[in-house]
Formats: sequence, structure tokens, C-alpha cells
Amino acid sequence: MVIVMKASASNKDVKGIEQALADLELGVHISKGSERTIIGVIGDKRILANTPLELMPGVDRIVHIVEPYKLVGRVFKPENTLLDIKGTQIGGKQISIMAGPCAVESEEQIFTTAHYLKSKGVKILRGGAFKPRTSPYSFQGLEEEGFKLLATAGKETGLLVISEVVSTRSLELAAKYIDIVQIGARNMQNFSLLKEVGRMKIPVMLKRGLSATIEEWLNAAEYIMNEGNYQIILCERGIRTFETYTRNTLDLSSIPIAKDLSHLPVFADPSHGTGSWRLVTPMSRAAIAAGADGLMVEVHPKPATALSDGPQSLNLESFTALLDDIRGIAQILGRDL
Amino acid sequence: MVIVMKASASNKDVKGIEQALADLELGVHISKGSERTIIGVIGDKRILANTPLELMPGVDRIVHIVEPYKLVGRVFKPENTLLDIKGTQIGGKQISIMAGPCAVESEEQIFTTAHYLKSKGVKILRGGAFKPRTSPYSFQGLEEEGFKLLATAGKETGLLVISEVVSTRSLELAAKYIDIVQIGARNMQNFSLLKEVGRMKIPVMLKRGLSATIEEWLNAAEYIMNEGNYQIILCERGIRTFETYTRNTLDLSSIPIAKDLSHLPVFADPSHGTGSWRLVTPMSRAAIAAGADGLMVEVHPKPATALSDGPQSLNLESFTALLDDIRGIAQILGRDL
Amino acid sequence: MVIVMKASASNKDVKGIEQALADLELGVHISKGSERTIIGVIGDKRILANTPLELMPGVDRIVHIVEPYKLVGRVFKPENTLLDIKGTQIGGKQISIMAGPCAVESEEQIFTTAHYLKSKGVKILRGGAFKPRTSPYSFQGLEEEGFKLLATAGKETGLLVISEVVSTRSLELAAKYIDIVQIGARNMQNFSLLKEVGRMKIPVMLKRGLSATIEEWLNAAEYIMNEGNYQIILCERGIRTFETYTRNTLDLSSIPIAKDLSHLPVFADPSHGTGSWRLVTPMSRAAIAAGADGLMVEVHPKPATALSDGPQSLNLESFTALLDDIRGIAQILGRDL
Amino acid sequence: MVIVMKASASNKDVKGIEQALADLELGVHISKGSERTIIGVIGDKRILANTPLELMPGVDRIVHIVEPYKLVGRVFKPENTLLDIKGTQIGGKQISIMAGPCAVESEEQIFTTAHYLKSKGVKILRGGAFKPRTSPYSFQGLEEEGFKLLATAGKETGLLVISEVVSTRSLELAAKYIDIVQIGARNMQNFSLLKEVGRMKIPVMLKRGLSATIEEWLNAAEYIMNEGNYQIILCERGIRTFETYTRNTLDLSSIPIAKDLSHLPVFADPSHGTGSWRLVTPMSRAAIAAGADGLMVEVHPKPATALSDGPQSLNLESFTALLDDIRGIAQILGRDL
Repeated sequence: MVIVMKASASNKDVKGIEQALADLELGVHISKGSERTIIGVIGDKRILANTPLELMPGVDRIVHIVEPYKLVGRVFKPENTLLDIKGTQIGGKQISIMAGPCAVESEEQIFTTAHYLKSKGVKILRGGAFKPRTSPYSFQGLEEEGFKLLATAGKETGLLVISEVVSTRSLELAAKYIDIVQIGARNMQNFSLLKEVGRMKIPVMLKRGLSATIEEWLNAAEYIMNEGNYQIILCERGIRTFETYTRNTLDLSSIPIAKDLSHLPVFADPSHGTGSWRLVTPMSRAAIAAGADGLMVEVHPKPATALSDGPQSLNLESFTALLDDIRGIAQILGRDL
Repeated sequence: MVIVMKASASNKDVKGIEQALADLELGVHISKGSERTIIGVIGDKRILANTPLELMPGVDRIVHIVEPYKLVGRVFKPENTLLDIKGTQIGGKQISIMAGPCAVESEEQIFTTAHYLKSKGVKILRGGAFKPRTSPYSFQGLEEEGFKLLATAGKETGLLVISEVVSTRSLELAAKYIDIVQIGARNMQNFSLLKEVGRMKIPVMLKRGLSATIEEWLNAAEYIMNEGNYQIILCERGIRTFETYTRNTLDLSSIPIAKDLSHLPVFADPSHGTGSWRLVTPMSRAAIAAGADGLMVEVHPKPATALSDGPQSLNLESFTALLDDIRGIAQILGRDL
Repeated sequence: MVIVMKASASNKDVKGIEQALADLELGVHISKGSERTIIGVIGDKRILANTPLELMPGVDRIVHIVEPYKLVGRVFKPENTLLDIKGTQIGGKQISIMAGPCAVESEEQIFTTAHYLKSKGVKILRGGAFKPRTSPYSFQGLEEEGFKLLATAGKETGLLVISEVVSTRSLELAAKYIDIVQIGARNMQNFSLLKEVGRMKIPVMLKRGLSATIEEWLNAAEYIMNEGNYQIILCERGIRTFETYTRNTLDLSSIPIAKDLSHLPVFADPSHGTGSWRLVTPMSRAAIAAGADGLMVEVHPKPATALSDGPQSLNLESFTALLDDIRGIAQILGRDL
Repeated sequence: MVIVMKASASNKDVKGIEQALADLELGVHISKGSERTIIGVIGDKRILANTPLELMPGVDRIVHIVEPYKLVGRVFKPENTLLDIKGTQIGGKQISIMAGPCAVESEEQIFTTAHYLKSKGVKILRGGAFKPRTSPYSFQGLEEEGFKLLATAGKETGLLVISEVVSTRSLELAAKYIDIVQIGARNMQNFSLLKEVGRMKIPVMLKRGLSATIEEWLNAAEYIMNEGNYQIILCERGIRTFETYTRNTLDLSSIPIAKDLSHLPVFADPSHGTGSWRLVTPMSRAAIAAGADGLMVEVHPKPATALSDGPQSLNLESFTALLDDIRGIAQILGRDL
């Protein structure tokens, strides 16, 4: 931590800071520049987390030098995290694809999709049962019934299943049926939920919030890991910007950045990230080319009748074509699909 | 709802839409322009909420005409909502001030503040007990102990108390101690929590999310009201933009807009909305001048030792001066403080 | 300037930086923390502006301590700048109002407006002659004819006139007719134009760009002042955010901030800042309450027939009512209208 | 164009609109829904561009159906535009690479780079001579001397050269030396400059503005084309968002969108788009995978001594490796490098 003093700060102000830090058993390094004095703080700065040094006389601002997260960072664990979920590996050489409908709607829908995905070599089936919807009048999901259908389809086909949780109750239900739980963008800073997922030690995919910086996203993962759950996948799914042509702006640069700062696997979700099925194929290719460890893609046997987010779902034919493109790009990067 | 067809749409495409809508017992109004055909949909469009018309052949895009919320809207209830919480009115001619520390820290801190506020005519005491913090290593609040201290201070001084809830558990505790619960920006779309607050029928202040549009904010309020809770206060507290000088950008235009679209009282929180105590006074004045029904302001007897958000708290002297300014501006707008 | 080294940086890396800076005749202050080494640079850092230290081995990032602008800053000139333009003062105790139509359309329109404004005590008449429009098919302004009409109306009524310039050619014309030129948001970083306005030493209002940080805005003013033109007014006119209900988000917090960082007068333009005449009155009041030195407001005798931006113009009656509100708020802040 | 009436609009209001449109010789199509009346306007809506219908009694809002640009749109010209600049084709099957230093600094620097690029099969050399810099105290470029060096290097190696213009003066100079002029992000809505480039009919690359929507970007291209210049390349170079880890957020989804809406070639600039050389390689791969027709990449023989934007420049070895990746991805998409 570096304390930048005001141009008008007096020697007394500097002494005051020095004393305050000494009281906290922290050392200082004072650097008098031609225009400003800068104070470097030496020692464990965590004890300063709750001390508003900005308010001391003469202080202009505080510059944080060390990132606030620890367990999820590369400094703490330099090598990539490789997850092994019931024999399926995530975060290694192989690209992982999670696919399926936005919402689980019926037995037929989810079984048709599951068998199709299985035939294409996909290993993880997605499907929403608890749907966070902007309006209370939109379809809110089949809830426990949806989890059950997903679990049955997973068992029959040998696919892992992933589904979103939105509350303690849905999390407890998910633990009975689901292999990987998902924390959605709107709940990325629902810290109560993060802590509970951390304590349950169930594999989790943490989506980036609509207005979350990369640092906040990693801090949210830190909440989970701090409770002892190390099985975390990060997923970029678009941020909110001024552009209205797409539902969100898929920030693909966050993928190489998150992989540089953290050892966790990083996925992309081009379906929610764009809101338009026409963009899913080019942005899926781009995500893999940018270094993503996997994709979450919405696929629906009949998008035009989907009860949720049909406009952003690929049909089965488009999805098959996409897999071919992805396979080629993966090989160029020395990876497999 | 208006369906805009592509320039290349055929008559068959238009007939297809007409048929699909007829199947749902909806009428159409077809308008052939020189470049595009536009189809107006007649009937209760709520049955279309789950039908992705965008995917039908020839459709370019869908334009929604009617706002998705209903109960919180002025069309549904044209006159202002006036809340009466244990005899204190909110949303009427009188401006309401909620003030107090970011976090409840100790008996001395909260009692000093409460007595001081009481002496200045303030009627509502704020104080956080469950604190949503970006990092798991920051002070997370005194939890139930914080609620208790707040309730005791409220009882002793006759002030109403408001505090944030972040989960079912904290909500159940709050119901025992707190007069008005607050849903923070990060939980604005925590729909599980919104529904529970709706069912509990406890007065609630709903803060606007960091990246929430005004329409999404009103939709979040609709979740609460749809469960039968009509005692809702909206609170603008800054949105996330590219500007880094302030923690958030306090969007004061949302105040007259929300008051135009909805009948609910609208407050502003210039402390979180700016992140700097130096800006709290000018932005508080501005919020009232823009038509806010009240303010939530962080006040701390000793900001420099606060355990949370000290840099954005006013000390008691600055707060007193602010009240004088607010009183004058309120009178110009025909209101009281 | 502070150089933050990587956690993995070696002693050799630190020596390398030290040597590189010594070659530039700059001193260093090395501070070894428990996790990172930080290097403070001593001397005139302007010679580093073109040296990419970020690329040297072991460097994590550079933190700038001193703001990049100088002449426009409070450190350089602590007292407020008071402009005197042909006897009219701007930036002092008195609030200044600039009002008039978005575009000069006809002699009748501009003379009606000018006489009306004069009768209300307004001192500056605005009117666009060169209009930067998003589409080439929209009305582009009367150009020189517009400047002439404005100048004649100004002469007849004794009002100062302000109008936008968009190029060297329009600037040269403006110098013949106009008292204050305006650089619009889209040209805030048109550095060629800024330099020319600087050299001409004509009073100028510099609007904040749609996506400009406050620091970039002050840097743009520095371009003008660096050429010798000290007669600069800053004007907040809304930034671009995700919210679509308003055309822009008027960032009123930029007013107290810009006034704190700079000695220049700061205005607000609630007409462009919101895009809706309904919001002009509340946001004008709010801007003055936030500390603005003046307003630029679009007023049109018949908004419904305006050739440009009618929807954001006040009619004459609404404008008169606004002036009364502003007068009251100004008095509370110890100012006059 | 569709006019949405307020819920409270009367029959008289609707008649008023009908009459106003009839006066402009426009027809209407009135659609009475259960909650709102909607009026479709029939005829050439361009005559409405300057009529603020929003202000007529009973009108809630106007919804534009047809995009405002024409010449640059796919409706006007369905097939891709293929540019041929002195024998080099842009926008066809072959991916184009523009590479070189941010700023032209010296004969040695530009010749070393040019020969190297030539040896790698690159066909277009970039280099800045007029540099728009945030601060007036940063290096502003060699100006005409830079153009000359670039032209000489181009002649010696047979490379085309591209460089930015920032004003009429620099444009006139560029016409003597440069093959393709570039309009930078900050000048995307410098309409005077756009018109002049349009009239000169010199090939031009138009970068997307930092806060420009895709529609505004296409409208800016329309300004150029409307003056008769059809040789336009669009270039995505990052938009401004809340994320501060990157200088800008490279919005790769704009590439498939712009290519869908317009017939013009679309490039990406990952150097400015990210601000960090570490991200240039992954984001270049991603841009090609998303469908870009070419890249503009900053390459410098010695990034650590560059006078401008060194931190975002690749050195020659990294650039060579990048070309190999791009070649592979291009082939998967059925294209060549």
C-alpha cells in the first residue's frame, strides 16, 4: 500500500501517518518527491482493511499494490488448477463443452437434447430449473422437477449435469441432483450464497457479474475458496455497456487476463453474452481462440418454441457445425476437443 | 407489441406470424410501409412472454410498447404512494432523512449518533449489521448483535431503524428488530430475497443495482409488490460507469424519471453514490433539488476510525450544515424538512 | 511516479530500473515491502512521458501520482478564475445563464428568443449554426448565415452570443461574429481544433466528451491553455452509460470535482445531458445545487416546430418558472442569479 | 416509423397526429390496442427528420423502424465490398494485416520494421505521424517528416502505407504521401473531417469511437460515402467500459454485427483495443475467429524504447508467431492469410 500525500501536506501530517501506522505495528518508507511525499507501508496490510487512512490530515489518496484476493491468485498457486469431476477433467488440455437448453421444459426436450449431445461427444449437459427472470411474470423454471429431469437425463446418458442455484433452498436441492452448480451473473456478489456454496464443497461455475470488474470476480471466487471449496470454474458471460445491439458485451479479453491472474479454469458463455443465436458461432470460435478452457452454449431442439431465451439458442444442426470449427481452432492452440 | 419484419420478408412470412398469433387468440394489425411491414399485436400480450417470435421466418425484431411492470406503475395507480411506518410518513410533502453509520460498531457509536440525530429532528436511524463486502477479508458486520444495538438505540430515542438484509436468515432476524429493511444494490436482482421480502410485508427500501436500468429497478420492485408488500421505497445509489474518480456515478435523473413512471417514493444515497464525503453535501443538495423524497446519508461521530466506508461518511458538524441547506431547498420546491 | 515491481522481480531487475532512471538523471527511492518492491521516482517525470517503463523486466505496473495537467489545476492557481467577457462576469458570485434554441433557424425565431431572454435578465444567447449531427441526412445548420443572425440579435439586445465551432473554417467565421465559441462533446479530443482555439485566444466553453473522464476533460482544457488562451469555461453535458431512458447520464458529481481540481468555472447543460425537456427543470435545479457556476439551457419559442432537438427544449413559460427556482437555490448557496 | 401514444391519449390527440402527417403528405396506419394506440407512418420518413413529433399532445415516444444510414447498408448493396488499393485487395477471401509502429520515430526504425514485415508477407505498413495524445506534453508525432519516411519505406519495400489524419491540414499532406488514411476513434464524429475525406476519395479506415454505438459508427461511414468515397474499411478498436484492467474493451461481437448490417470490410485493432502487448496475440486470434477481414497490429523492433504506446506493441518475434496462429484459424474459416 502506498499513501500519496497532498501537495499541501505538512511535515506534521506525514509524522501523523507515521505514528498511526507505528501504532498498528506497521513500518513506513517515506519518499519525498519534488511535488509530493509518498509513504510506502511495510508489514501485513490486512490490518489496515478497516482503517480509513484517506481521512487523515494531508492524505490525498491510497494506492493498493497487492491484489486483495489470495487463494485464487497465481502468486499463491502458480500452476493451473485441473478439476476432476466424476472422471471428467476440466481445465487441462481438453476443451470442455457444456450445452443444453436455457430452461428444462419437459422430459422429451431434455432427453432429446441429452442424447444428441452425447452422440456429438459433449460431456456436460446444462439446463435451468431455477430461472432468475427480470420480470415476475416470465416463466420461472420447473424448480425441483427440473433438477430431477436433468439428473435422470444425465444418468441415462452418462453426461454430467450443471444447473443454476439462486438461494439456499435451491442449493440444498441441487446437492441431491446436480454435479456442478452455477452461480449466475446476478448473484455473483450474493455473498451469503457464495459462502454456502463454499461450505458445501460442490463443484461450482461462477459467472462474472454484469458490472463486475475482473478483480471483483476473483474476489467473489475467493469467498467460495475461503470456505474450503477449491472446485471453481470462472465463466465470462458479457458485461453491460452502452451498446444496445447485443444484450451484453462479451468481454473476451477477460479470458486471458483471468487466466493470467488466477490458476482457475475460465469458460465463456456466448449465448447470454450476446443474446442472439446468430452471434453464438462466431463468438464461440473467438472465445476458444482467446484461450478459453471451455464453453457454455445454449442448444435447443426447437428454439422457436423455447420457454426461455429461445432467440439466443442454437438448433442442433448449427451446434454440430460449431463443434467442427472449435475442434480446428483448439488444435492450432495445441489443445483437443 | 410491434413486430418489425425484415425488408426481405415475404407475404408468406407475414401470414405465418398472423397464424401463430391467431393460434394464441391474439389479433393483428398489419401495416405495410414503403420499406417494411409492421405487425401490431392486439390482445393480452402476457401470453407471448415465453414465445420467441424473433425466431419466426421474416422477423427482424420485436418492439415492446407497454412496460413489463404493472403494480408499481403510474398507469395502475396514478397518485403518489404515501407510506406510514409507525406514524412516520414517507413520500408526502415532508422530506425524510435516514442517517447513521455505514456499520454498527459499538453501543457507544450507535447511541452517540442516535441521540445526535434525534436532536436534529431526523426520524430514521440507519446502520449496517450484515455488510456485503467485496473481499471476504473485510469487516462483515456485527450481524444479530448489530440489529440488537440498533433496535435498542431506536427504542431509546424514538427513531425508526433501517438496516440491510442479505439473505433469508438475516431477513428473519431483521423482522424481530428492524422497522425498514433495505435490499442493497448487489441484491437488487436476488429474486428469491425479493419474493421473501414481499411475503413478509415489512417496509423495504430497494436500492438500484450498479448496472440496473430504471426499468429493471421497477421490475425488481414489482417482484416485491406482486407478493403483496406495498410498502416500498426506491433509492438511487449510483451506477457503474467508466469514470473512476467517484466510486459510482450518482444518476440523479433517475429520480424524476422513477417518480414519473412509478407512484413510489424515491430517495437518493449520495454516500455510496459517490464514495467520498466531500461530495455528499453537494450531491445531497442536488438530489433534493431534483425532487427526491428523502436521503440516506452516512454519518459517523468519528469517520477516521470507522470500520467500514469511513471515507464517505460525514461527521456530525458537516451533517448539521447539510440539513440547513436541504431545508432551504425543500422550501423552494414547496416541501418541508 | 511509482513503479510497482512483480512479486517475482529479482534484485537485478530492480537495479536495471535504477540504472535506466539514472541515465535519465532521475533519482529513485526503493521500498522493499513484504510482498513487493516499490520504486519511487524522483525528479521531473515529464521526461518519462515517452519511455515505456512497463516493458522493463520485472515491472508489474506504473502508478502516476501527479496529475498530467498543470495550468488548469488548482495547484498551479489556487484561486477561482473569474472571466470578464465584454463586461459580463463568469465564475464569480453570480450564476450565469446561457439560453436559446439548439439551432438558429430564422430571424424571427432568434429575435423573439433574444428579446424574451433579455427581458428575463439572461445575459448570454446560445444558438447553433454549425450542427454536428449523427446522420448526414439531418439538418446541419445555417452555417455563416446562422452566425450572422445570432450576432445581429446579440447586438440589438445587448446579449453576448455563444455558438459551436466544429472545424478551422467555422472557427475563423465565428471569430468575426461570436463572443464565446463552444467546443462540443464530440470534438473534446479534436486536438487540432483545441490548439487553434488556444491560439485565437477567444473565450471558449469546453464540453465534456461523452466518454471522457474528468482527467481527460481537464487535459483537453490544458491543450487550449497551453497555447495561451486562459478564458475557458468547462461544461458537463452528460456521459454515455448503459441507461437508455435518457439520451445521456448527466454526471452532476463532476461539477464539485472539476471545481476542486481546477480553478475554471464549471457549467452544466441539462438539455443535452438528458435529451428530454421534462428533465431539464429538475436537473437544472440540481446542477445549481451541486455548485455549478452556470447553465446552458435550450429554449425555443415553439419547441414542436424546432428543426433540431425540439424534444429537449423548454418553451418560454417553463423557462421563466425555472429561473425562479434557480434564483432561490442560488441564494441558499450564497450566490445570485 | 411508429408513433406510440400515451395510455391517456385522446381521440383528438390521434386525429392531431394524423392531420400533422397528412400536412406532410404522409399516410398513417392506426392500430388501437387494448392499452395503447400505435400509429404507423407511411411514406418517405426522411421529411420527418426535423419534426419533433415527440412533442405533440398524447405522444409517448417514437420508434424508428428503418436504420438511418443507407449507402453503407446491406439493404442498399447486398454483396461484400471488395477494395482494390493499388493491386492489393481488402475484404475478400484473404485476411489483410496492417502492422508497424504506433509512431514513426526514425528512418532506422521504420525501415527495419518495413523490411521485416515485407519478409513475412505483410502488405500494409502502419505508422503514426500525427498523434492525437491525451496530454499536450506527450510526443505528438513527426508530422510531415513522418509521412515522408513512411512513404519512402513503402516505396522501397512495395508495401502500402496507412497513417492517421487529424485535421484538414494533415489530410492534405497525407494525400501526397499515404495510400490509406485512418480516422481515429476520437475523430469518428468529427463530421467536417469525414466530409473532407469523403470528397477526396482516398481509401480510408474508419475506427469505431470509444463510446460509439455500431449504428453511429455506420452513420459516420455514411458521411464519407455520401460525399462519393466508397473505399471504406471499418475497424473495431475497443469501447470504453467500467473495466480498468484493459485500456478499452475490445468488442469483438461488433465484427459479425457490422458485417451483417454493412457490406464494408471490418478489421480489428487489438493493440489499442487492449493497451497491453500480452493481450494482442489472444485477441488477434479471437478477432479472426470472429470473422474479421483483417487486423491492425502495433509492431516495434524495440518496444521498450518506443516513443508512443510501447506497452501495447509486439516485438518482431511475437508478431511472427502470431501470423502462424492467424494463418491456421483463417484456413478453418475458409480464408487465407
